[in-house]
Amino acid sequence: MPIWHPCTQMKDHESYPPVFMDRGQGIYLYDREGNAYIDAISSWWVNLFGHANPRIVRAVTEQLTRLEHVIFADVTHAPAEELAARLLAIATEGLTRVFFADNGSCAVEAALKMSHASWRNLGHPEKCRFLFLANGYHGETSGALGVCGDRLYAAPFAPLFVEQIEVSGPDCFNCPYGRVREGCDAPCFGAMQEAIDAHKDVLSGVIVEPLVQCAGNFRMYPPAYLAKLRQATTEAGIHFIADEIAVGFGRTGTMFACEQAGVSPDFMCLSKGITSGTLPLSVVLTTDAVFDAFYHDYVEDKAFLHSHSYTGNPLACAAACATLRIFEEDDVIAANRAKIDYLHTAVRERFAGYRHTVDIRSTGWITAVELYADPERRIPFDWKARTGFRIYQEAKKRGAWLRNLCDIVYFMPPYVITLEEIDKLADIALDSVKAVLG
Amino acid sequence: MPIWHPCTQMKDHESYPPVFMDRGQGIYLYDREGNAYIDAISSWWVNLFGHANPRIVRAVTEQLTRLEHVIFADVTHAPAEELAARLLAIATEGLTRVFFADNGSCAVEAALKMSHASWRNLGHPEKCRFLFLANGYHGETSGALGVCGDRLYAAPFAPLFVEQIEVSGPDCFNCPYGRVREGCDAPCFGAMQEAIDAHKDVLSGVIVEPLVQCAGNFRMYPPAYLAKLRQATTEAGIHFIADEIAVGFGRTGTMFACEQAGVSPDFMCLSKGITSGTLPLSVVLTTDAVFDAFYHDYVEDKAFLHSHSYTGNPLACAAACATLRIFEEDDVIAANRAKIDYLHTAVRERFAGYRHTVDIRSTGWITAVELYADPERRIPFDWKARTGFRIYQEAKKRGAWLRNLCDIVYFMPPYVITLEEIDKLADIALDSVKAVLG
Repeated sequence: MPIWHPCTQMKDHESYPPVFMDRGQGIYLYDREGNAYIDAISSWWVNLFGHANPRIVRAVTEQLTRLEHVIFADVTHAPAEELAARLLAIATEGLTRVFFADNGSCAVEAALKMSHASWRNLGHPEKCRFLFLANGYHGETSGALGVCGDRLYAAPFAPLFVEQIEVSGPDCFNCPYGRVREGCDAPCFGAMQEAIDAHKDVLSGVIVEPLVQCAGNFRMYPPAYLAKLRQATTEAGIHFIADEIAVGFGRTGTMFACEQAGVSPDFMCLSKGITSGTLPLSVVLTTDAVFDAFYHDYVEDKAFLHSHSYTGNPLACAAACATLRIFEEDDVIAANRAKIDYLHTAVRERFAGYRHTVDIRSTGWITAVELYADPERRIPFDWKARTGFRIYQEAKKRGAWLRNLCDIVYFMPPYVITLEEIDKLADIALDSVKAVLG
Repeated sequence: MPIWHPCTQMKDHESYPPVFMDRGQGIYLYDREGNAYIDAISSWWVNLFGHANPRIVRAVTEQLTRLEHVIFADVTHAPAEELAARLLAIATEGLTRVFFADNGSCAVEAALKMSHASWRNLGHPEKCRFLFLANGYHGETSGALGVCGDRLYAAPFAPLFVEQIEVSGPDCFNCPYGRVREGCDAPCFGAMQEAIDAHKDVLSGVIVEPLVQCAGNFRMYPPAYLAKLRQATTEAGIHFIADEIAVGFGRTGTMFACEQAGVSPDFMCLSKGITSGTLPLSVVLTTDAVFDAFYHDYVEDKAFLHSHSYTGNPLACAAACATLRIFEEDDVIAANRAKIDYLHTAVRERFAGYRHTVDIRSTGWITAVELYADPERRIPFDWKARTGFRIYQEAKKRGAWLRNLCDIVYFMPPYVITLEEIDKLADIALDSVKAVLG
């Protein structure tokens, strides 16, 4: 087996060989033996409208014979132009510029570089530091690791990147104020305000995942935190960078999570769902103010340099255009509401009161069940027991791809899941948990 | 125009609006007005077998309806398995493991992270520094910028990354020893040997672009340098990281540039041509020794963590498999030889002796003509005059996409170009140069 898989201790494959997937259709993945799995986590949170979605297949197929790819410097093409227009039509106010990259990490890299270099071009090279939230995740290239609060991903590579400034984050699961998320006005923002005040002169910006820190154990926090962050960054004259890579395109119930706080960031990073799980693509949306900082005569040497060979790939753009057309034609955001409620209820009905459930939390399509050895006394399972991993293995046997995150069983299915399938998935989840924990 | 293009001073578009490309066929790109352009630089060095290549189109189309994408942790699929097997069958000796990423920058990030973390797992966390060559280029994410010798790309972002250790590189254009490249035994390797000796205890590895520093003005150097580097890194117990992103897949005449030195690196980064310019994809090939450093029981916490959502994308893998099948079925490396010779001759016939030609250099499919104001006295053009850029504009009018690199006119066409088209392209190049410089 020559392939080295991501996010995997390869020795695990001695006991659990990788599943050989043969095809996908709708919410289902099928392995070579014909076993079906509900893709309960949307293949790492990317698939929105099901595998082999005919509308997306058609768009990519048509583009394939027309113009599969072309250099994107000094060139434009129809799929990129349509995509840019569609993105700006749905983006929060003030976002007017679209910069393309290939994946989430590279979008974050581009945003950080753009943020700092814009200050530099404006005569403030000292504005080069970023604040980030504890437990946050923004990708795994070196710049992204510098703003990674989740130590698991960053610690082994510490000498390779510039660590930015960590701020203790909002986390309604462990709220030191004893609040509940619903309606909370985020007193925990105090730590961020203090950090902004302390470092203001050297800050370029603040980067956060709005509403849900997905890779960081699905910790969730209220919109009020984002409203305060928008105000504080504006007052301090620094950038607000919203990493909506995981939460964008309807995952939190609104098209973008920032909408729930009524705010618009200076940078919005998007990827994952942008092609509905078809092809790698990312974009950074930003403002005229940022763009203008680079807009000068060539000889002033102020252009923004950040390129990837496949920047603006027409096939990926075509998949993204098809995705955004589905959102529009099917009024997806509105249509999703009933399903989201049904998912919340289905999971709560099964897991509330279960003896190892310490928390069930939901934001839009994301519902996470956290399991502890002793919820009453707040004692987690020993991580070496791999409880979540064993539950995931049981779920596979029962027909659901419920890859765990630590000891969290979570649900982030494609939007085309039916109510019946939601029930089936929730049943499999509970059965799998009980198969491991009794 | 909401799109912010890569590697572009956007104000240039006031005078030179981006060309709206409509379709591609073979070596030709066609804009909306029906103008044709020979894609002389293979759309940023990615296209090998022409636009809309039917064999690649067929492979991607078939994969689209079968399995467009699936999470690649704990999952494998036919296109990834075939690709891994094909890559290892053609890779240099000792490369046995295939790690996937989405673009060149991310492959470099993964290689640097893997290199350091392997030493860390083996009990040598102090081995965390890298040597890189002046004038080199390895991508534009923060880790890649840390090994970027070309200051143009790195300088504006200096506070954002850990700068590694620069070593003065081989450069036959400015050889301080007065040698010529052909047959040279690389006395310039002395600087690298000194750097290795000086930093040996903290070094993780050395990263180079074998034979040609493409983004770095197409500086070329002899295979002997690579042979010495292999020996020196082995003796010092550090990694040799070959960035073959631009030079791999036949660009230098052999499948991989390292072959010309008879060496195999510890890491080989590949991208660009891997899908023949269809879709973003990259891989890191490495050895059992590196792999084994991470292969432990899960609870030892030594897994290599580096993931992108679209890692191992089946569509990109299908395009890459089709690309490698073409190499095999058409015996491309052998078939290319005559064309490569023809290209060298065609360019030399036109540009040797031209009054602004200071150097014509070729390695395989890459031929660069460097233009100086006064070649005799070695006086370049004032960069602010944008001589190369103006030549590129003239070439567009004449039907060739000859995007310049500084004041270098270079040729890196798709392998499917015919001898007649090579002549046509060389003619356009000379006409365009003369239109600007007389």
